[in-house]
Amino acid sequence: MSNARAGEEALIARYFAPLAGPGAEELRDDAASLTSTPGHDLVVTADAIVAGVHYFPDDPPTSIARKALGVNLSDLAAKGATPRGFLLTLALPEDWTETWLAGFAEGLGAASRDFGCPLLGGDTVRTNGAAMIAITAFGEVPAGTMVKRQGARPGDRICVSGTIGDAALGLRLHPANRRGWTGPVDAADRAALIERYRHPKPRLMLAPVLRRHVRVAMDVSDGLAGDLAKMLTGVTARVILADVPLSDAARRVIASDPTLLETALTGGDDYEILCAVPPDARDDFLAGSQAAGVAMTDIGSIEAGEGPPIFLDENGAERAFARASFSHF
Amino acid sequence: MSNARAGEEALIARYFAPLAGPGAEELRDDAASLTSTPGHDLVVTADAIVAGVHYFPDDPPTSIARKALGVNLSDLAAKGATPRGFLLTLALPEDWTETWLAGFAEGLGAASRDFGCPLLGGDTVRTNGAAMIAITAFGEVPAGTMVKRQGARPGDRICVSGTIGDAALGLRLHPANRRGWTGPVDAADRAALIERYRHPKPRLMLAPVLRRHVRVAMDVSDGLAGDLAKMLTGVTARVILADVPLSDAARRVIASDPTLLETALTGGDDYEILCAVPPDARDDFLAGSQAAGVAMTDIGSIEAGEGPPIFLDENGAERAFARASFSHF
Repeated sequence: MSNARAGEEALIARYFAPLAGPGAEELRDDAASLTSTPGHDLVVTADAIVAGVHYFPDDPPTSIARKALGVNLSDLAAKGATPRGFLLTLALPEDWTETWLAGFAEGLGAASRDFGCPLLGGDTVRTNGAAMIAITAFGEVPAGTMVKRQGARPGDRICVSGTIGDAALGLRLHPANRRGWTGPVDAADRAALIERYRHPKPRLMLAPVLRRHVRVAMDVSDGLAGDLAKMLTGVTARVILADVPLSDAARRVIASDPTLLETALTGGDDYEILCAVPPDARDDFLAGSQAAGVAMTDIGSIEAGEGPPIFLDENGAERAFARASFSHF
Repeated sequence: MSNARAGEEALIARYFAPLAGPGAEELRDDAASLTSTPGHDLVVTADAIVAGVHYFPDDPPTSIARKALGVNLSDLAAKGATPRGFLLTLALPEDWTETWLAGFAEGLGAASRDFGCPLLGGDTVRTNGAAMIAITAFGEVPAGTMVKRQGARPGDRICVSGTIGDAALGLRLHPANRRGWTGPVDAADRAALIERYRHPKPRLMLAPVLRRHVRVAMDVSDGLAGDLAKMLTGVTARVILADVPLSDAARRVIASDPTLLETALTGGDDYEILCAVPPDARDDFLAGSQAAGVAMTDIGSIEAGEGPPIFLDENGAERAFARASFSHF
């Protein structure tokens, strides 16, 4: 280890101890304690992001940190959980720099504060490959109320938060993407879509609304089409394509190349909430979402039957997607 | 993705869903729920192991899995916690095979059953570098009783479980270690020491004994000398070298090359418990450990002062270690 780069203990003390929450012993222990709220269940989730796979190595380290935490908190939000803390396992590549790490810690601290989710501990290792950020996040729900993914029933309405496809289009428009889309695009639209790719916004405000009203929910991380398929066990679904919410920027880009609609629906990284709602709860759910400050759109219905979801275009024709879901794997 | 290797969802269903515990929704959700025992705190810890750094890539995958879980449960044991579950983030290299993964899952399942710690979820990603297994483990302690690492006081006795240095010597004797020790060694001794390197045995039986009797504790993962130094805040320590427990195999190897004593004391991977015990609790603690089936040895004392621990040889001379702690970082 060179003097120019500090050892693991020094790194932790300098960059990560300031982010530590209660019970984390200032990261000077090998574990942290967390006092559960009486009458609550813990909800646990783990998601890792890898340089060159889930983000561009040259993305700002503050953005990478925010994304790493955000994708985990998006899972907690979809389960109806309130964040309590997280553990970070950071695999640093051979060419890591303290400048990068300082930026990463700064972004992680800001995201941690914004999302109300303190750092509780973790591990730092070296890798001969790409950097990897593996986070485990903990949240809480009142006992027995975790919102599940399986169990949608025929007749349930399918709803989705925010807008779909922005991040996938942002990925296609990212200047570092060698397989990107190179058609003409407004600079502000490009910036807005890349912003959505870089900075997922976990829908934490929806957690109590989901617990109260929905049958099942998940976050959209691998594309609307593929993730909806994962939600269907013993049922199928019909989605009205024209009802899928798109941002103005996404509409304009898709208008200039209609094949990009498939990117929007299958590309992933939305981190919006996808859920199935009993029909008699739909209106209250939409109102509750609006009161929580999140747009929520009814896009279709759960149907009896089997097979992947069917997407209907404006002529009532069924659209199939060659590639239903983005797989990083 | 080739047909020869299944996609992520199929892999999870085939290899990992059979290991899932209650609340894990058969790994068909993005999160798991865990009901805390009333009146208990959760204890959380994360440790990752990387191929070529923490284990040899050609080690049996069953062994690698057992080690990945074992090093995490060792931290829980040291904190006085009973395991409740774990999350697995698995980064697979480009040349992974289903044979390897099947062996890994088999070993993980066996370790999970042996240690009473079910799989709750996780993530699988691809890496362009070495394989990495990042585990987050959860345990429980009665509220407020997590055993901490900092806070040892002058006069406390320093105790350590089992024997020290076996794993570090096993690493030196490992046939795949190009910087290994090449002196003569009995085949059974070599096998016993390599076994200790490959298969850490978390001292879970000690958890309640630690909660009852010790002031502070940690597991020895980076070498006795360095880890003891980490335990000292505002105090120092004196260790009687002759009292440090060594296995017969370790004694024989060290007898043939006395410089290997330093390997034993600084090399790491022991996964034994190191603790400081108030002097009036020492005898009950030793008896309690024995009743739990774990050898426990008094090796020295916490002293007023500052600085790294002092090791005294049979002549009362102070021994210094050039390299106090093994750092993988």
